[in-house]
Amino acid sequence: MYRTHTCGELRLINKNENVSLSGWVQRTRNLGGMTFVDIRDRYGITQLVFDMDTNSELCEQARKLGREYVIQVKGNVSERSSKNSKMPTGDIEILVTEINILNKSDVPPFTIEDDTDGGDDIRMKYRYLDLRRATVRKNLELRHRMGQEVRKYLDAQKFIEVETPVLIKSTPEGARDFVVPSRMNKNQFYALPQSPQVFKQLLMIAGYDRYFQIVKCFRDEDLRADRQPEFTQIDCEMAFVEQQDIINVFEGLAKHLFKEVKGLDIEGDFIQMPYSEAIANYGSDKPDLRFEMKIVDLTELAKQNDFVVFNSAEYIGGICADSCASYSRKELDKLTKFVQRPQIGAKGLVYVKYNEDGSFKSSVDKFYSQDDLKKWADLFNAKPGDLLLILAGDREKTLSQIGELRLEMANKLNLLDKDKFVPLWVVDFPLLEWDDDSSCFHAMHHPFTSPKKEDIELMDTDPGKVRANAYDLVINGVEIGGGSIRIFNDELQQKMFKLLGFSKEEADAQFGFLMNAFKYGAPPHGGVAFGFDRWVSLFAGLDSIRDVIAFPKNNSGRDVMIDSPSEIAKEQLDELFLKTIKPKE
Amino acid sequence: MYRTHTCGELRLINKNENVSLSGWVQRTRNLGGMTFVDIRDRYGITQLVFDMDTNSELCEQARKLGREYVIQVKGNVSERSSKNSKMPTGDIEILVTEINILNKSDVPPFTIEDDTDGGDDIRMKYRYLDLRRATVRKNLELRHRMGQEVRKYLDAQKFIEVETPVLIKSTPEGARDFVVPSRMNKNQFYALPQSPQVFKQLLMIAGYDRYFQIVKCFRDEDLRADRQPEFTQIDCEMAFVEQQDIINVFEGLAKHLFKEVKGLDIEGDFIQMPYSEAIANYGSDKPDLRFEMKIVDLTELAKQNDFVVFNSAEYIGGICADSCASYSRKELDKLTKFVQRPQIGAKGLVYVKYNEDGSFKSSVDKFYSQDDLKKWADLFNAKPGDLLLILAGDREKTLSQIGELRLEMANKLNLLDKDKFVPLWVVDFPLLEWDDDSSCFHAMHHPFTSPKKEDIELMDTDPGKVRANAYDLVINGVEIGGGSIRIFNDELQQKMFKLLGFSKEEADAQFGFLMNAFKYGAPPHGGVAFGFDRWVSLFAGLDSIRDVIAFPKNNSGRDVMIDSPSEIAKEQLDELFLKTIKPKE
Repeated sequence: MYRTHTCGELRLINKNENVSLSGWVQRTRNLGGMTFVDIRDRYGITQLVFDMDTNSELCEQARKLGREYVIQVKGNVSERSSKNSKMPTGDIEILVTEINILNKSDVPPFTIEDDTDGGDDIRMKYRYLDLRRATVRKNLELRHRMGQEVRKYLDAQKFIEVETPVLIKSTPEGARDFVVPSRMNKNQFYALPQSPQVFKQLLMIAGYDRYFQIVKCFRDEDLRADRQPEFTQIDCEMAFVEQQDIINVFEGLAKHLFKEVKGLDIEGDFIQMPYSEAIANYGSDKPDLRFEMKIVDLTELAKQNDFVVFNSAEYIGGICADSCASYSRKELDKLTKFVQRPQIGAKGLVYVKYNEDGSFKSSVDKFYSQDDLKKWADLFNAKPGDLLLILAGDREKTLSQIGELRLEMANKLNLLDKDKFVPLWVVDFPLLEWDDDSSCFHAMHHPFTSPKKEDIELMDTDPGKVRANAYDLVINGVEIGGGSIRIFNDELQQKMFKLLGFSKEEADAQFGFLMNAFKYGAPPHGGVAFGFDRWVSLFAGLDSIRDVIAFPKNNSGRDVMIDSPSEIAKEQLDELFLKTIKPKE
Repeated sequence: MYRTHTCGELRLINKNENVSLSGWVQRTRNLGGMTFVDIRDRYGITQLVFDMDTNSELCEQARKLGREYVIQVKGNVSERSSKNSKMPTGDIEILVTEINILNKSDVPPFTIEDDTDGGDDIRMKYRYLDLRRATVRKNLELRHRMGQEVRKYLDAQKFIEVETPVLIKSTPEGARDFVVPSRMNKNQFYALPQSPQVFKQLLMIAGYDRYFQIVKCFRDEDLRADRQPEFTQIDCEMAFVEQQDIINVFEGLAKHLFKEVKGLDIEGDFIQMPYSEAIANYGSDKPDLRFEMKIVDLTELAKQNDFVVFNSAEYIGGICADSCASYSRKELDKLTKFVQRPQIGAKGLVYVKYNEDGSFKSSVDKFYSQDDLKKWADLFNAKPGDLLLILAGDREKTLSQIGELRLEMANKLNLLDKDKFVPLWVVDFPLLEWDDDSSCFHAMHHPFTSPKKEDIELMDTDPGKVRANAYDLVINGVEIGGGSIRIFNDELQQKMFKLLGFSKEEADAQFGFLMNAFKYGAPPHGGVAFGFDRWVSLFAGLDSIRDVIAFPKNNSGRDVMIDSPSEIAKEQLDELFLKTIKPKE
């Protein structure tokens, strides 16, 4: 052992002990006769003292230590004269008697501090140095802690962790697969799993009753800030359960994590909000309930006058922004531009200022009287000083646009408290969604999702109305996970395939072996999968999943640290009976 | 919930309770007026009773239940008149009042019993049915339990579990990589990790101090019974440690698993056996110490006569098989054939029977007198009734052949007790091994393995003699894991590369970014990786790792259940700018 203690361990109680520490040089300060060196490891920082009077040679040595040198010191624990209450070891310092330089360090390309001077690109290239920063390390420690607690909870609930294969079979359904050429089976390919969906259902058929796995999944998609080509799921499945049973177990998991990891007691049951209500009130199937600002439907009330934009709209609605009547022209223009961004796509924004004096000023004063606007304000439950922001158009799109505006306003009004957590279940999702491009229904979750019993008849008459036994866990506007009860009845499954436009042959080709497995006694079952990266990043108070991943890839799917992907040797390609084709420039 | 209890839960204490159970029909027995049905789930089997007199309709229904039907029953817990002490629920049975067939089942292609009638191939194809058998399920439950206990122990030891990437970079060193074509980076490839070696060393440089991960690794090798293209490692690394520190921590892990999983207390420290001793005494670097039967070096003693085979041999040695002097000609011929198998490759086998009457009968009676043979017997510590089995030739090969023979004899003599576990550390491995083919040294472990300090000088004078700070954990002749202290000094690393025949350019090209990382303050570090599949299969008493893997692949790397690998669509290949080449027949 190169140490008797870690750099975060010593306290006043260790006074006068002879100790040895090992770690990295955080910084050195020369104060005339004394030199102070902060030594750092994963566990903390300890102050080392070198006295010119006592041992000038040693002191000279200490003065020459560079940042990030790896050193081992021996010395005596001493009480500090000026204590530092901000660090756990702040009561003590080490009077050093011996120093060993274990390794030197080049000057790092950025400072190893919480507020580093390094930009994103250089920190990615030198990720192993970025990982030294306490802020980054804490995210990975949080991830570790959450992983352990997930396992502890699920193990106690009799879940069995089963590793499913990584080299599986490519299916044309869903997102794009990463494929892996097989050398032993020439011209054939494995695929990396987008999720272990099929395998977990097979494990239920195999009678494993309660399965989970914290598992890497892969999707070859064009990347965004919160997407990575490889990501981690908490994947779970249970047999002999109905929707509420699954919700109970995994609400328990969420509460366990809140309690053990964040120290928060979440009282009572999570809200269960039907999908239709989430859309109507929050313009989103993942509503952020840390703040109210519900969407108000103004359609009926606003159509009574001659404003053609409203009268031709399927839907009119908006939100009431607390105490924002004083917004300037410029601020309102900015909001208009916000909703007109192509990602959001609204044509324009109507505002109504409910002035402190009780009067109204709006962008539709030409069409609506003060009395009209008072009625609107009442519907919004607005008070003098508030600002109404109103959009109109196609119902679905408009609600989604208002939902985005609602989040933007919450952000402006500092309502997005990162230390507050409001979880809910969104339930009663539609089973199917109509796809205009292909003119047929798609499965909103996946083709094995069970419809609600009471809606099964609608599958023949009005398939778009059928609700699924599907549920999402949403926290603070982030979809942490979701799942469904699966179809386990062959007849119902065939009906579902038919609705999705699969011929019997197509269904057989794609899902044949799973359908075959269902013939041998499939139990009722259902499950859920959580985005582990996202859950950790939510708990860490981060906006992107990248900083809870030790070695993430950039937006082009590259690991710039190891410079991957890269070209491979011709011999490797030959062995795989593969040829690369040069893309046309 | 489809049940109030599981099928393994009910006891006499539940007598008279109204319960509901769900599970699979294990079997039905019609005994005149009564019908008994065994219902099975992951947790056990419970007996259901249907009485023709009480409810003939229900009884008729029960009689029609097929094997593996999924049913839900309601009924009353009753005390059995004839109890079955072999099953935990054997004191009770359920007087059924209601039965729901949740799903029918086709007749399964083999019986779901511990001793099934299904062959290997059909069980692999219907793996989800094979997984229903209690023997298979217990292996996976053991795997789960071991995984949880590994995490519990390492977490308590302050190890942090960090997920390293699966999409990494191909390196020409070592075994063959699986590669993954990148769509976003055309004509470039990721590789799947053979181990997270580089990343765990980077995590040490990043100051993570104690890292572990239970992680899938991949090797595109031709397969054997105990190899799979994807396998699972318990991968660990520690900073600021020397060899003995690592051995202490992971001996602790092994003892924890023995205790918590097998209920065994292993007293005292594990033996640490130098590699040279393991080879000399057991003919193997993974000696099975469940039995003695040490190899005896007969070279000096046997060279004193005119037997040219011996006199021309570099090494003569053998084992003493207890009480085997009575072996017949046929049995001895079988042993000769055993050592002559091409995998073993001995030319012949010399035997010496130490008869009960004190006389000797050997295959070399022409050359050696009874007195000569008595001296041999004394050297072997043999007693009348024993059999000496002797091989001669090149030292290294002969020792390995005797090692194989030793295991074969132990097997014949029933010395391989699956309930006995003898762990040891094999230490002091050579740093390098000479490769005749390429006429240069190869790293016995990997190029970052540190030589022993006291042997560093030998690197210049006699590299083959240099011992490494490397160690393997061996249990019952199985190498469960191994590791080493890493080089963290640039100068020493360059010397190592030179010995391995790398030019500076080659070393840079292959390990450049890791070498670069070493410039920024690398701490002394070392680690270990355990074969998780192997460890589980050892604890399960199995010879192959296949049955501790939920969905294993066959010897051609195929998953015959999902029929993978398979051809992929031309569109997928086009997107990847790839073309397959038809192999010549």
